[in-house]
Amino acid sequence: MHVTDLIRKKRDAGELTREEIEFLVNGYTRDQIPDYQISAWLMAVLLRGMSRAELAALTGSMLNSGQVLDLSYLPAPKVDKHSTGGVGDKTSLVIAPVVAAGGLYVPMISGRGLGHTGGTLDKLESIPGFNVNLTTAEFRRVLETSGAAMIGQTAEIAPADKKLYALRDVTGTVESPYLICASIMSKKLAEGIDALVLDVKTGSGAFMKSEKDAVFLAELMVETGQRLGKRVAALITNMSQPLGHAVGNSLEVIECIDVLNGHGPDDLRELCVILSAWMFLLGRRVETLEEGKKLAGELIACGQAREKFREIIGLQGGNPRVIDHPGLLPRAKHQVDLASPAAGYVTGMMCEQIGAAGVLLGGGREKKEDSIDHAVGIMVHKKLGDKVTVGEPLCTVHYNAKERMESAWPLLQGSYSIAAQPPPHRTPLVYRVIGDTGLMQSGTAASL
Amino acid sequence: MHVTDLIRKKRDAGELTREEIEFLVNGYTRDQIPDYQISAWLMAVLLRGMSRAELAALTGSMLNSGQVLDLSYLPAPKVDKHSTGGVGDKTSLVIAPVVAAGGLYVPMISGRGLGHTGGTLDKLESIPGFNVNLTTAEFRRVLETSGAAMIGQTAEIAPADKKLYALRDVTGTVESPYLICASIMSKKLAEGIDALVLDVKTGSGAFMKSEKDAVFLAELMVETGQRLGKRVAALITNMSQPLGHAVGNSLEVIECIDVLNGHGPDDLRELCVILSAWMFLLGRRVETLEEGKKLAGELIACGQAREKFREIIGLQGGNPRVIDHPGLLPRAKHQVDLASPAAGYVTGMMCEQIGAAGVLLGGGREKKEDSIDHAVGIMVHKKLGDKVTVGEPLCTVHYNAKERMESAWPLLQGSYSIAAQPPPHRTPLVYRVIGDTGLMQSGTAASL
Repeated sequence: MHVTDLIRKKRDAGELTREEIEFLVNGYTRDQIPDYQISAWLMAVLLRGMSRAELAALTGSMLNSGQVLDLSYLPAPKVDKHSTGGVGDKTSLVIAPVVAAGGLYVPMISGRGLGHTGGTLDKLESIPGFNVNLTTAEFRRVLETSGAAMIGQTAEIAPADKKLYALRDVTGTVESPYLICASIMSKKLAEGIDALVLDVKTGSGAFMKSEKDAVFLAELMVETGQRLGKRVAALITNMSQPLGHAVGNSLEVIECIDVLNGHGPDDLRELCVILSAWMFLLGRRVETLEEGKKLAGELIACGQAREKFREIIGLQGGNPRVIDHPGLLPRAKHQVDLASPAAGYVTGMMCEQIGAAGVLLGGGREKKEDSIDHAVGIMVHKKLGDKVTVGEPLCTVHYNAKERMESAWPLLQGSYSIAAQPPPHRTPLVYRVIGDTGLMQSGTAASL
Repeated sequence: MHVTDLIRKKRDAGELTREEIEFLVNGYTRDQIPDYQISAWLMAVLLRGMSRAELAALTGSMLNSGQVLDLSYLPAPKVDKHSTGGVGDKTSLVIAPVVAAGGLYVPMISGRGLGHTGGTLDKLESIPGFNVNLTTAEFRRVLETSGAAMIGQTAEIAPADKKLYALRDVTGTVESPYLICASIMSKKLAEGIDALVLDVKTGSGAFMKSEKDAVFLAELMVETGQRLGKRVAALITNMSQPLGHAVGNSLEVIECIDVLNGHGPDDLRELCVILSAWMFLLGRRVETLEEGKKLAGELIACGQAREKFREIIGLQGGNPRVIDHPGLLPRAKHQVDLASPAAGYVTGMMCEQIGAAGVLLGGGREKKEDSIDHAVGIMVHKKLGDKVTVGEPLCTVHYNAKERMESAWPLLQGSYSIAAQPPPHRTPLVYRVIGDTGLMQSGTAASL
């Protein structure tokens, strides 16, 4: 097999065999194929696309390039959720305890924030002592004990993805739905899960701005997961405004504790319940989506989910007292309200800009190496369709450094559209569900 | 300027500015931009194409990456010819002496054979003593003295092309007409010429099998040359059968001497006259193409062109006595005829296969490092449309090693199609002429 022939085949819109794709991925991971050949191939993939069989082969090769956890000894199904990222997107911190409290295992390997979107690991690290860098043995112990564990990617998981991602990042080949799919799915399936729920965001705060692009990526991921023997469903969800009110690491943890206490914003609570229900459904804990929602709601109402979160925090070295005393979480020194310049209704939010303002405050990273300030962030009081009066606070900025607040301020000011008339209709929280398991029938109908 | 942004721009079918293209080419040539970024960009160029302005910028950047000969002190125009390569394509050895004898300068920098096509340098090196590796100073001296000099590419000429070509060769990015154009034109224009005639071959023995592809490449090269301030025309010529009879280095030199003596095959003589006429026309030595043809014919008939070739050979260290004694050229030990298996007419020749047979005999290279046998080759007796009887020789194989002859034999056997009826029409020698100078009007009409 010659690398150049394989590049030419893809360049000319041909379909590579599984063996050919494995040859490329393994050769690259083992440093036997140079960067410059793989980058030409990646560009050809980006511009020519891949068949579903090719994509499954690519994902499988990347998955098998490293350690694949074997959790088959655990006595209940293993399920996880992955989000393509958004602003205020904090559902993992609620879902993992809910689903573990419901009797399934949630071996969750997450990422950090980059760009305008936040990351689960950064949010967790705002809890004093919380350790996301567990060894595999520690990860298994937390998972076995509590039913959920939440860590960052280890060096052993999908090394091919690490190497390919670093190359894509400098060769203009990040933005391929095929390559995005293989990257996400290879890492998630290395967790040793039986089922996966994908939360594919669309709207002004998502990577996929158009619903069409989000649906396409979701379809690729669902089919790829299924071809690799997993039960997978994808929800296309609304990211045209921040999820919940809190944007910023410790602010978001507090909001999640609120939800686990039976309070918190409606949209966040509802999405957590829907995603948990899908995990219960795909994990065969329930027969219908409605049953799953009911179970999730009950686990929150009775406090079991909250206690599960407390247990996980304790097992991962964090201070479990934050559950009862959110004041133990880092707090910013200063707060300032952004007042509405007009009376009327909120008709638009530039959600990516709100996320970017959070980064400028110090709550996110512009470069991978940046350290972050867990305390800062934005509390969004007014959202799409809300009525506002002149001078009423649209949001509150929590900040530590004045110059950072001043750099973020214009972004926030420019992110709200206020008009005399309310928007014609509220956009739904979940646009569509994609999947084709036998379970889908009830699920789709119920969630829409 | 960020390399990744430029890759993305081309990936998304955008147009790079001249400054952006210079940044990439200069950065790569100076080892400031890594291979893996340039290979991704090359793949994007191959799949997205380039505007004519981008292509001129790329060619200009590559041209200016090294030494550009300044021959402006010479008292007559400098012209050259470039062929995209074919089988038995030996016109340079006739044209350079003809045009130099006509009073123009021909600073010819040529290549070696690779794959099924031959190379001018290999043909010249079959002349005992002939040195194609002159220094720039020696090259100038030969050129000033005789009006023509024929050498190989030096390290100083278009180093960007050398580096880019080596990368293209291993990344599946050779076959882009844009990149082929930039590679050819950057090297040719570094010769310090005023005008260039391009012989773009099409047919079974050419790199561009279809006339459409040949025309497209020709148009790119003509416009690129014109944008860089040169007078350029391209002839789309027939390579559906070998040019002349001889395929093989010293056999081809002998055939060229025949032409310079006023003999030789009609097609070769005619194409040499037409190409020389175009060089005279673009070099403003004549007013019309007809006048150019007449001049070329006279320079051959009176022996001046032959004497010019003798002079060039002598100045470049070769034995000028080969002109009168072709027996001084290397001769293969053995000859064997390929007899026609049927009576009828030659209706097809797989010209690339005949070229490949020449390589198998040892007359060409499979890899760049291979050494070659100048003596071996094929004399083609029957060509398209010719009548043959059973057992009549279609061609004669000149060989030194029996096993090489045996490996080439089936290719030759399979390359001829013989049918009862002659082919419906003879294909023309020149299909089209491409160019837009004021001189074109008369030229096009006259040559077709």
